[in-house]
Amino acid sequence: MSNSHSEIDVSTGSNEAFRLVVSADVLQRTVALVHSLVDECRIQFDAEAIRISAVDPALVASVELTVDRSAFEAYDAADCCIGVDLERFRDVVKMANRDQLVALTLDPATRKLEIRIDELSYTLALLDPESIRSPHDHSEFELEFAGTVVTEAGEIDRAIRAADMVSDHLTLRIDEDEEVFYMEADGDTDELSLELSASSLVELTPNDARSMFSIDYLEPINRATPSDVELDLEIGTEAPVAVRYEFADGAGDVEYLVSPRITT
Amino acid sequence: MSNSHSEIDVSTGSNEAFRLVVSADVLQRTVALVHSLVDECRIQFDAEAIRISAVDPALVASVELTVDRSAFEAYDAADCCIGVDLERFRDVVKMANRDQLVALTLDPATRKLEIRIDELSYTLALLDPESIRSPHDHSEFELEFAGTVVTEAGEIDRAIRAADMVSDHLTLRIDEDEEVFYMEADGDTDELSLELSASSLVELTPNDARSMFSIDYLEPINRATPSDVELDLEIGTEAPVAVRYEFADGAGDVEYLVSPRITT
Amino acid sequence: MSNSHSEIDVSTGSNEAFRLVVSADVLQRTVALVHSLVDECRIQFDAEAIRISAVDPALVASVELTVDRSAFEAYDAADCCIGVDLERFRDVVKMANRDQLVALTLDPATRKLEIRIDELSYTLALLDPESIRSPHDHSEFELEFAGTVVTEAGEIDRAIRAADMVSDHLTLRIDEDEEVFYMEADGDTDELSLELSASSLVELTPNDARSMFSIDYLEPINRATPSDVELDLEIGTEAPVAVRYEFADGAGDVEYLVSPRITT
Repeated sequence: MSNSHSEIDVSTGSNEAFRLVVSADVLQRTVALVHSLVDECRIQFDAEAIRISAVDPALVASVELTVDRSAFEAYDAADCCIGVDLERFRDVVKMANRDQLVALTLDPATRKLEIRIDELSYTLALLDPESIRSPHDHSEFELEFAGTVVTEAGEIDRAIRAADMVSDHLTLRIDEDEEVFYMEADGDTDELSLELSASSLVELTPNDARSMFSIDYLEPINRATPSDVELDLEIGTEAPVAVRYEFADGAGDVEYLVSPRITT
Repeated sequence: MSNSHSEIDVSTGSNEAFRLVVSADVLQRTVALVHSLVDECRIQFDAEAIRISAVDPALVASVELTVDRSAFEAYDAADCCIGVDLERFRDVVKMANRDQLVALTLDPATRKLEIRIDELSYTLALLDPESIRSPHDHSEFELEFAGTVVTEAGEIDRAIRAADMVSDHLTLRIDEDEEVFYMEADGDTDELSLELSASSLVELTPNDARSMFSIDYLEPINRATPSDVELDLEIGTEAPVAVRYEFADGAGDVEYLVSPRITT
Repeated sequence: MSNSHSEIDVSTGSNEAFRLVVSADVLQRTVALVHSLVDECRIQFDAEAIRISAVDPALVASVELTVDRSAFEAYDAADCCIGVDLERFRDVVKMANRDQLVALTLDPATRKLEIRIDELSYTLALLDPESIRSPHDHSEFELEFAGTVVTEAGEIDRAIRAADMVSDHLTLRIDEDEEVFYMEADGDTDELSLELSASSLVELTPNDARSMFSIDYLEPINRATPSDVELDLEIGTEAPVAVRYEFADGAGDVEYLVSPRITT
């Protein structure tokens, strides 16, 4: 163990320990992004970053998230993995104002997480990481995406909220010839369409694509997404959609993968 | 059909078609005013204005509303009538910011209403106008009103909210000799009185009048009313009250008529 | 009866009468402070102040509150006592804007309270003071407090809200040697500690003390407390805690006494 880890109590001989300091803003955002899909998750720590991957109970949507050490005020971590109850963790972290700092320390002896916000100290019991569902790597999916769209999160938000009034499903579609990205919902009586031409988008790689998704999965992801970020969407035909964006001034990176509903 | 209707698809031979553009602000207000009494309504269009009249299911309260073509950014309508589910319509129109424009187009072939807010297009199924309850004209009532009051909506709001704590009923009363307008509620234990002398009112025509109304009817009308408008009240003895005001910078006009509770 | 009481109708010969004018702000605060423990209370009036004392139904927490006549815009009261339904009273007083004046007049003939907010007059039926539970004087308790803490209400608020996530109980503790005030909660899985050293407090009289309280009692008191006041806490060992602070620019004074949970 290098000198740089001198603050960590290594008396137990375990190298599973860390001490991090991070703004409540970044931590609250990180928790919200994962909590949109799952109630508990594993968090992996190494010398460079924290990584979270999780899949929802029905195995329809998964998330991969990385927060680089540069997002932290202080970062001192050996390789380790903890299991966290996200609802409890969120409630504790919410007690900080957004501009306050939060210190996270793993006590290797008790395997509990100390969360410190100024004079307030909260000791959070951890979950057994082995007990938590683990997703495949997104890289294993070998998706062949037909088209890509870069757009403001606000546009997706409008489409999802409007589609929710009409139907349980939202279709994402790219028309290659028209160079238009469509978000469409077709309900029992009403219909909804948001059409964004290349000029209304930040970027469009127009290949024909069309997949339909359950709004029940898109909606919580949308709610956790800041309205001012630029989203990268990769859309195929009857294929999962990948939604990717950066947060924490570029030090954080999150990718969701949502499986399509099979259209008949 | 004149040239000015050139944008309308008349391929079906039907002259039942329109294309209107209006600020979300005016449209949201219009919908709210009618939705305070009913869940569905007929909307009549002609070359000069749209007109809505509706009566609540118990036939206690009715509304007549006109929005002149001058309130619209673009107005192109032949005589026609549609039936609208107001809750659905409200939810769609709420998606616009108050200063956005909303375009309404009736497709005469499908008899569906296209609601367009920038790139967002919502196709709303319409109701059969014949299936919707229709009120008598207010002019048929031939009310003989004893007194009139012109006052700020905020005063009525205060009285209704206070009276609601005391009783199910609110009495509107004008004392001709005192030249005072009273709003009074008399509960099992408590009493409420708001007395406005001529000097506190915009206008008072002091004839003795006294009628009692169910707060269940006054409250939703009050809630839909902007707090800064001037209300015209016409009050009789054991007679309906007429509540009238303008909106949309004078291009809109609404009148409610609420039947009294018979006092014993 | 002196000339200064000339505004009061004494035609019944009763000297139980008053006429007060007070800002809605002060009156709303006063009602909220008492309503945090009880739904009804006696209010005592004399020439110098109004006084309220009340105890919760389980006899765990009590409040003593005084508002000096200097907090009122007009104050004209003979010795008297009324019984008030606090929920109803609160709802009436809430109708005033915080900077409006509220006039309270007791009609000795009808034994009803007239609450006047500009042109609005509300007549509130009173309760029989004899029917309302009455606490002992706080002075009768002869508490021997071991330590005292003066701190900002915001710190207590943070501790109570955090402790509520962990446990049903909050322990208040002073460590005499360390000169530290602790607020601690120990739950089934998690732990919470807020430690405030003398330097983080406005004042500390460090005598060893430790008592545990039900958060169900602390929480409503905390919610009614303005976040910017300085609280005086007197803490003993297995003894009631006294929480005292001023409001209404020093013209109001409130003290809560909460009994401890017996620790085993």
